[in-house]
Parts: sequence; C-alpha cells; structure tokens
Amino acid sequence: MTSHSTNMRIKLPTICIILEVILIILFGVFVRYDKETDSKKWHAHHDNNGSEIENDFYYRYPSFQDVHVMIFIGFGFLMTFLKRYGFGSVAFNFLIASFALQWATLMQGFFHGMGSDGKIHIGIESMINADFCTGAVLISFGGILGKTSPVQLLVMAVFEVTLFAINEYIILNIVEAKDAGGSMTIHTFGAYFGLVVSRILYRPHLEKSRHREGSVYHSDLFAMIGTIYLWMFWPSFNSAITAHGDSQHRTVMNTYYSLAACTLATFALSSLLSEEGKLDMVHIQNASLAGGVAVGTAGEMMLTPFGSMIVGSLAGIISTLGYKFLTPILDSKLKIQDTCGIHNLHGMPGILGAIVGAITASMATHDIYGDGMANVFPLVADGEVTASGQGVRQAIALGVALGFALIGGCIVGFIMKIPIFGTPPDTLCFEDQIYWEVP
Amino acid sequence: MTSHSTNMRIKLPTICIILEVILIILFGVFVRYDKETDSKKWHAHHDNNGSEIENDFYYRYPSFQDVHVMIFIGFGFLMTFLKRYGFGSVAFNFLIASFALQWATLMQGFFHGMGSDGKIHIGIESMINADFCTGAVLISFGGILGKTSPVQLLVMAVFEVTLFAINEYIILNIVEAKDAGGSMTIHTFGAYFGLVVSRILYRPHLEKSRHREGSVYHSDLFAMIGTIYLWMFWPSFNSAITAHGDSQHRTVMNTYYSLAACTLATFALSSLLSEEGKLDMVHIQNASLAGGVAVGTAGEMMLTPFGSMIVGSLAGIISTLGYKFLTPILDSKLKIQDTCGIHNLHGMPGILGAIVGAITASMATHDIYGDGMANVFPLVADGEVTASGQGVRQAIALGVALGFALIGGCIVGFIMKIPIFGTPPDTLCFEDQIYWEVP
Amino acid sequence: MTSHSTNMRIKLPTICIILEVILIILFGVFVRYDKETDSKKWHAHHDNNGSEIENDFYYRYPSFQDVHVMIFIGFGFLMTFLKRYGFGSVAFNFLIASFALQWATLMQGFFHGMGSDGKIHIGIESMINADFCTGAVLISFGGILGKTSPVQLLVMAVFEVTLFAINEYIILNIVEAKDAGGSMTIHTFGAYFGLVVSRILYRPHLEKSRHREGSVYHSDLFAMIGTIYLWMFWPSFNSAITAHGDSQHRTVMNTYYSLAACTLATFALSSLLSEEGKLDMVHIQNASLAGGVAVGTAGEMMLTPFGSMIVGSLAGIISTLGYKFLTPILDSKLKIQDTCGIHNLHGMPGILGAIVGAITASMATHDIYGDGMANVFPLVADGEVTASGQGVRQAIALGVALGFALIGGCIVGFIMKIPIFGTPPDTLCFEDQIYWEVP
Repeated sequence: MTSHSTNMRIKLPTICIILEVILIILFGVFVRYDKETDSKKWHAHHDNNGSEIENDFYYRYPSFQDVHVMIFIGFGFLMTFLKRYGFGSVAFNFLIASFALQWATLMQGFFHGMGSDGKIHIGIESMINADFCTGAVLISFGGILGKTSPVQLLVMAVFEVTLFAINEYIILNIVEAKDAGGSMTIHTFGAYFGLVVSRILYRPHLEKSRHREGSVYHSDLFAMIGTIYLWMFWPSFNSAITAHGDSQHRTVMNTYYSLAACTLATFALSSLLSEEGKLDMVHIQNASLAGGVAVGTAGEMMLTPFGSMIVGSLAGIISTLGYKFLTPILDSKLKIQDTCGIHNLHGMPGILGAIVGAITASMATHDIYGDGMANVFPLVADGEVTASGQGVRQAIALGVALGFALIGGCIVGFIMKIPIFGTPPDTLCFEDQIYWEVP
Repeated sequence: MTSHSTNMRIKLPTICIILEVILIILFGVFVRYDKETDSKKWHAHHDNNGSEIENDFYYRYPSFQDVHVMIFIGFGFLMTFLKRYGFGSVAFNFLIASFALQWATLMQGFFHGMGSDGKIHIGIESMINADFCTGAVLISFGGILGKTSPVQLLVMAVFEVTLFAINEYIILNIVEAKDAGGSMTIHTFGAYFGLVVSRILYRPHLEKSRHREGSVYHSDLFAMIGTIYLWMFWPSFNSAITAHGDSQHRTVMNTYYSLAACTLATFALSSLLSEEGKLDMVHIQNASLAGGVAVGTAGEMMLTPFGSMIVGSLAGIISTLGYKFLTPILDSKLKIQDTCGIHNLHGMPGILGAIVGAITASMATHDIYGDGMANVFPLVADGEVTASGQGVRQAIALGVALGFALIGGCIVGFIMKIPIFGTPPDTLCFEDQIYWEVP
Repeated sequence: MTSHSTNMRIKLPTICIILEVILIILFGVFVRYDKETDSKKWHAHHDNNGSEIENDFYYRYPSFQDVHVMIFIGFGFLMTFLKRYGFGSVAFNFLIASFALQWATLMQGFFHGMGSDGKIHIGIESMINADFCTGAVLISFGGILGKTSPVQLLVMAVFEVTLFAINEYIILNIVEAKDAGGSMTIHTFGAYFGLVVSRILYRPHLEKSRHREGSVYHSDLFAMIGTIYLWMFWPSFNSAITAHGDSQHRTVMNTYYSLAACTLATFALSSLLSEEGKLDMVHIQNASLAGGVAVGTAGEMMLTPFGSMIVGSLAGIISTLGYKFLTPILDSKLKIQDTCGIHNLHGMPGILGAIVGAITASMATHDIYGDGMANVFPLVADGEVTASGQGVRQAIALGVALGFALIGGCIVGFIMKIPIFGTPPDTLCFEDQIYWEVP
C-alpha cells in the first residue's frame, strides 16, 4: 500500500534537504543580526549607553537555555515512556524541533518582526520565541506519537509553525492580549491543533498495536527525566520574554508555587482514583506539569503566590481527572486517539490559564501595579482600555487560539493524510523498528 | 495489621489535600511579594536606582535553577540505584520536595523573614532558602529510603522543615555563625536527623527485603545522572545565597576544586579497599560528592583553591571509608539501617565542613579580607567579635545543629511510627509494587 | 601477562594519590585568587567601579555551568551507548575530567596566565578554560574507549593537558589566531591526538571483543541524554570566553542555527545511506553535533545565521558520510580503531571549522564589524595585519594544532603502552566487569 510505504530512503532525505535549502535561501535574503548581536550596531549603540551587561543576552540567556532544555530534553524524554518508541520519541522530537525553530524564526519574523528595512532582525528574544513556537508543534506531536512518519511530522511542522505565527500575531498585536507563557498561543493552540489532527488521522484498527502502547519500568524512568526538567524549568519558560526586572522575577515565583501545589494535587487525585490507592506514573509524569500551563498567561500579573497555588491545584485536579475519565471517552466516542494525553496536560490547563489570565487582567488596578502597569498592561496604563476591557481581550484571544487550532488542525490533518508522506501500518504503530536500526 | 496497611487511597489524598489547603490559607494570610517581585514597589524603587539588571533576579536566578536541578534531578535520581524502587525514589522525592518548599517558605518566613507589617515578603532568595530546607528533608529521606510510606514521608517533612527553620534561625541569627552552603544547617542536620529517624524505625527483619536492596546495571546509570548533576551544580549550591560579587565567585571556585580533588580521592580509596581493586559504584555515586558538603561553610571564606583541594580530598577519603567500614557497623551494632549511606555523604563530611569553617573563620584577618570582611564576617568587620570568637561561634553552631538533629529526629521518628500513617511490611521494603501501578 | 594485569588495586590508588598530592602542592605554591574572586582585591577595585554585577561571574557563570554539563553529562553519557561499558564511560569520564581540570589550571596558568608576581591568578574564565582543555582529553578518550585502563587514561591526561596548553599558547598568543570555541585547539587537536594514540595502541585481535562493541536499546537512550545536552549547550561552549556583549550574543546565535541545520542534514544523510531508509542512532547521536564543532572558530565572527546554517549542513553531511564510509576504512586500512568515531565528530568538522574561520577572518572589514573589530580581530583593528593576513594566521594555527596532535599523540601513545599502566586483554575490551563491581 502506498499509504503505508514506510521506507523513508527517498522521502525523508528529500524533504529534509528541500526544507533546509529553502531555509538557507530565505535566511540569506531576509535575516540579519539585530542591534544587540551585530558587531557594528552594538558598538555604535553601546558606546553611548554604558555597560556590556545591558545587552539583552544577560537578561535572557539563562532563561533561553532552560527553555531549550525543556524543548529538547523535556518534551523529548517525556515521550520516551513507550516501551518500543524511545528512539522515535526523543529523536523525531529532535528533528522536528530543529526544523521548526528555523522556520519559526522566519514566520514569526514575517508576521511580526520585520524591520523598516524589510529584514528580520534577530537576537536572543527571537530565539526564545522560535523555541516557544516549536513547543506548540511538539505538543501536537504528543497527540499523534507513534502513529505518523517523520515526513508527516515535518509536513505538520511546516504548516503548524505558519499558523502559529499568524495566530500569535493576531492575539498579541491585534487583539493585544497578554500571554507571555503561552497558555493560549502555545498550549491551547498546540493541544487542540494536535487533537484535531489526531481525529483526522483516526485509526479504527489501532488495537493491533495497543500491546505496544504501554511502558516498561525503565522507560518510565526515562520519561521522568523529561517530566522533572519540564517541571523545574517552567518558571523560566513563563518568564523568558516578560519585561525585565520585577516581571521576570514575579513570573518565576508564581510558576514555582503553582507547580508545587499542582504536584500535591496530582498525587492526591492519582491515589484517590485508583481502587487500591496505587499511584499511576502517567498522572505523575503529566498532570503535575499542568500547573505550569495554567499560569502561562497570568504568571506575569500580580496573581500572588496564594493565587498561583489555587490555580496550580485546580490544574492538577482537572488534568488527573482528564487522564482517568476523559481520555478513554475521547478515544471511544470522539475517535481522538491522544497518545500522550495532550488534552489533559495542555488543552484543559491551557484554557484554564486563559480564563485565569482574563480574570486577573480584569482585576488590575493602578494601586496594585503602580508604575509597573506599563510593562504588564500597556493599554491599561495608557488609558486606552479599562482593566475589564483588557479582560475581554484576553477572552477573545482564547477564542482566536481555539479557532485557529480547530480549523488549522483540520486542514493540516487532511494534508498529512496524502499517501506520499507515508505512515506506519496499524500493526506497526508505537514501534521503532520501522524507522530505525534497532539493536 | 494496621501498621502495615499499605493501601494509600484514603490516607495519601487526605494528607495531601489537607496540607495544600493549609498552605494556601497561610500563604493568603501571610505571604506577599517582596520589593523586587512586586510591580508597584520595584518600580517605585527602581526609578531611583537605575538599571533593571540590579534586580536580585539577575544575581541569583541561574544559581537558583542549578539548586532546583540538584533537589529534583540530583537527589531524585541519585536514589534510583535500587533495582525495584526507581519510581518511589524519583517520585516521592518529587512529592515531598514540592510540599517542603512551600512549607519552608512559611516556616523560614515566620522564624526569620517577617517584615514589620507582619507579612512574609518573598523573592528569589527565599525560593533558594526554601529549596535548601527541602534538601535537608531529602537527605533524611535517603536514610529511610524504601522503608516508609509516602504519608510517613510527608509527616516527617512537616516536622523536619519546622525544626530546620528554628535551627537555622538560632545558628544564623542568634549564634550568628556563617553557613552559606549549609554544612551544618542542611547536611549535618539533615543527616543526623535522618539517622535517628532510621534508628527509631529500625526493622529487625529487614533481611526479608535485602535481596531488593541492590542495583541493576541500568539503575546504576540512572543514579549516575543524579550524582553528576549534584556534583556539577554544587558550586551553585554553596554560592547561591552568599553576598553578591566576589563572594559568589569565590565560593563557586572553592567548591569546584574541592569536588575535583574529592573525586580523585574517592576513586583511589574505592579501588584500594577492594580485594580485586575493582571500583564500587556506591562509592563513586556518593563519596565523590562529599567534597561539596565539606566546603559548605568555608566555601565563601578565603579558603584558597589549595585549601579547598585538601578539604575535598579528606572528605572523599572519610566518606569512602565510611561506606566500606562504618555503614555495616551502624547497621549491625547501632541498629541504624541507612539505605543511602547518608552518614557517609552528608553526616561526617558535614561535620568536617563545620570544623573547617570554624578553623578558617578563626584565621580571618583584615589583611586577607580587606573591605570584603563586612560581607563574610560582619561581626568581625564591626569589631564586635575577634576572628577566634567567630571560630567559636562556628563550633557552637555545629553543636546546635547536632542537638536539633538528634532530639528532633527522635521525636519525629516516634511520631512517624503511629500506625495510621502506614508503613510497608518487612517483606515489601525497597519495592515499588505496593505504592505504584508497575508495568 | 604484565601488560594485561588488570588488577588496579595498587596502580590506580597510587597514581590518583600522587597526582592529587602534586596538584595540591603546586596549587599551594602557584595559584591565587584573581581580582574578581579575592575578597580584598575585588573590594578595593569595586569601590571605584560601581556595581557588583560587573563582576565577571555574572557575565560568564551561566555559560560555565553549561560547559560543565557538556563535559560531565554530555561527554560522559554520549559514550554510554556501549552495552557493557556504561560504568566505564560515565565514570572514567568523571575521573579523568576531575583530574584534567585541576592540571589544566596549572598548565594553562604556567603557559599563558602567569601574573607579574609569578603566581597564577584564577577566576571564572580560567575555570572555563580548564573545562575546555578537559574537553580535548575527553575527545581523545572517545577514540580509545573501552580499550584502556583508567591508569592509562590518567597518564594520557597528564601529557595531553600539557601539550594542549603549549599548543593553545602558540595558537592564541604567538600566531594570534582566534579560536573561541576551539575548532582547532580543542576539536582538531583532541581528535587527531586521540586517533594517533588509538593507532599506537592498535589491537590486531580486537574482534574477540567486537560482540560487545554495540548498543542495547536503553544504552542508546542514555547516550541520547549526552547528545542532546551537548547539542543544547554548544552555543554556551562557543561563546563562553568571547568578549562580553555582542560577541557572546552573536556566537550563541550562530551556533544555534548551525546545529539546527546540521541536525536536518544528519537525518537526511542517515536515511539516504541505509538501504531500507532506516535511521542509524550512531549518526543521530554524533553527526548532529558536528555543526557545533564547525562554527567553533567562526562563531564569534560576523558569519551570519545564513552562513552558519550552510556550515552546519556541510558538517552534518561530512560527519555522517564519515561514519558510513571512513570509519571502516580507518579501521581496516589505517589500523585506527576509533570507538566513538571522533574523526567524524571532531576531526573533520574541526578542520572544516578552522577553514571556515580562516575564510571568514579574511573577509572582515571595518564596514561590517565597526568598533567591534577590536574585540573580534584586535590585530586588524590596530592595523597590525590585514584581514587576509589574519586569515593566513588562522590557517597556520590549524597546521600547528595538527602538528601538535600528530606528534604529541605518537609520543604519548608509546608512553601509554608501558606495561606497568595495565591494559585490558583483547578478550575483555568494552567490558565493565574488569574494573567494576557489576551488579
């Protein structure tokens, strides 16, 4: 069958080479160093402004590296829980992330980073944004893990990155909502996009591979490496592109407490939902991270540690409940085969995060934010909108993200079904053997 | 038997939920952003003071993240060496650390961080301190690994964090000793506390589970992930809360050389102590870290790289000797079943670190420290005490830490024996099966 | 046979203790805190210069820690791919790196870090340089992995570090070439040194151990931890000791894009070179890193992201081709048994990096670099040499590195053959059992 022609010898090299050549050409034409990475511009600028430490590099590079670890180790190893898909999990994650971050540099640049000279100027902040966009693709990947060829994944990345950039542009620059940690732009978008793709790629005979859809003892420990790295560095994720100073600092703190509370909630629910009171590694590996997703929008706001802990606890509860009750329903009723449970880890907590963001925004007052209002809610500080107006914008942004995800995922899902991209047969899902020399 | 009722379905959710609700309420009442995380306060402050880079976030966040990795990956994976307790090691570590860092924020805040407004003001430094306190609990956990229920562990954390905060308050604020890297407050306290708890929980029939108390090939490699992360980031641990500038920088350097020397000493001893000259993974995984513990107090002082290397070598030697000769004696004679050998990794090296700190302090002169004396030994700089007076204070602090550990561990050990908290039977120690859905 | 006396009980402790004692004595005599780590000097200096944030610690410590992770986790775990040599890979890496960084502090200090007082003054930059030098030793280790005793490795480290320091001195201080990320000083030198050592230690009967020279499923996942960490933190490696400000920032960005492009090229070639189109983990684990090596010299220059991506793609292609075609030839024709394929990952990409550096240097103009020229090419900025003159110097530096590697490796290889240092028999290569208590 053409659609199951799993030999990648022509397809995969062809798509990789074509994409990289296109990337190189477009970078050559459009991409330039920005004023903090360009030797001439920085020194012209810097001589008037004092210390080298004011280069944005020193504000953001540690956060960037933490985000980078989340993208490559965090997502990569989180998905190694499958007993026979460890190579595919960590290495396809590596492949599509390496592509997506290059493509995202261009797409985000085209849609909202173009200078007056018609060039895209890049630096540490654009690198973080590229990694963020990549994160959305990897979330979607989690929904179809083990059921797609690497060529299909690259095709998905091409389109998803593009849609991500447009969606992000609308949310941040037109609706002017705030979403520093991406509850909407990254998590909600990435999750529902992936779920719709998974629906389009529905496999009625997936039971032929179900025996491979579980873990073994050590694969669960590899997955915990992913979990713990995501958990630890989520404060860096949410704060990586907020304003300098108190904003980065506060976002880190809110995320830290949200995640800690979420972990306790997850352990509580996981034990409670088991007849024998036994903990389930799937819950611990995933639901304990929902607290980071759920403060992705409000983390930079004056949410307070106390508020963060409430949000984190809620996120852990709904996420664990989702794994227990909703995932089986999605599968049996809605024909959504969500391998990693992205609906529970990114979907619902992303929506929760958007709602929390809207509520927190609508409660902003100058008495609480002081002169920092200009950093967190510039429209409110300028008097252009009221706090509740900002709250409404946040809610609209959620709608935009969901809309893009659902329609975009639908279109891209059908594109991915084109037989030429190859796809594993139902009998060989969740199996490294078809794409890898396995020892 | 009630005491062996290992079904956690009611107990674990109940304690998690009660603790988290209490935490949320107390945070709501007492915890506030400090002047570097609060939008209004920072901007009021900052407008008079220049650059955003002066926010303490930029001085300490990279160190914080390294400490965070040590707490969650370092401690978590170091304990995965057991062949059938990998889930419990990494995930109970995750659970109790997530609880302890929240509780520590409150306890440390109550005992020595309260503002004049009766509120606890938090920022990056309090987060580091909360992680440090958590470290002590995880050290104690190492002494009882595999022999306790997660409920017992949470109970231990509640009390140990509280005692830690009091002990720390006495040592730092009353005795006014220096202990930036916590040789006394974290390692000595955590280790002897855990050893006493282990004594109280002594199991005369533990031989029924001894066959599970070893490693398998890959579990030792997982444990090496923990070891190496602890080793690499220990310089960040010891320097995370020292004064800005030369103090952080010097502490990092002293710790770096101490650990390097310690590693050579550990390999030398491990080979020497084996009849066939074969290296023992237990030694490499643990004793090579003793050099970090042993410069926990003196690391910020003018110990010199040369001095650090001597201390590190000594620490590696006594720690390896401890694993070879002392651990069996503790077990057979003193009825202390120290699963991870915390006495060798944290106990003796912690005491060594306290002694080195006392000696180094007593040798401080203005000629060596210059104007930096005010950062390292403020009392000496102010003329309030002599250098040898500071040395005496350091020695007193060690006594305080040991006293708190021994008495506290005894009381808490008996509390943990209350049957309602559950505990695994002697036949099912070091076994994930009783608390986990194991694939 | 003496030469196969694998019992390390006397040899290993003896060499470790002798080396550490020598290190401690030499540190005591020669090594001092520099003006940023010394309490008195920093405070004398700082009071005239403003903020503590200007301490070099804050410019370089995050990069240092990333480099540190590459050295200990990256190299250590990359080599755990062997099914029965995981302990040796990660722990001998740990041992020789711990020694080498101490020894490098001295050797680099003697050859190019001596103050006017005859002392070596150390701080964060010397720590990074010590880790860099260690990296070269670990590269060479990769070429002889599984075929040497730990004593032989320490002997190699003693000499290789010394030669590294001399070679580095000649390249950076006499030839005055630029090589911030060490394409020449670290990768070319380390690789060809290791290859020559491997040639000298050629084992005609290695087929007796070939069945152990492969991986198992989970050992390949452990190796991917090493790969991904090296890949993620390579931007920090290349930028760790460049000038502050735009130079660090730009180097990070160039390396980031080079590596991303390299990964796509590696996947493309790996699939293309397999008859069934199946990907080979050896390629993914190694060749995808070649992009970091290949911008080790030019990364700090105005290479542009576009240029970096071309270089990275080329590096991925030649490296993968090397694994497929060259490694078997080296083995069968040149009698070089290169366990980890260091020729493909470090050798050829290192030479490529040197050439790219020479070309990029020769194209430098004041119009491109502006006042930043003084940081990147001080000789050109001063008018001492032309840009093409700088290019020639870069090319000469490559020759120096190759010369030192080939001659040095030859001499040191013969020293390592001295029977007293022990070496595993042909039947027990790639086997932990002979040096480790294996569970």
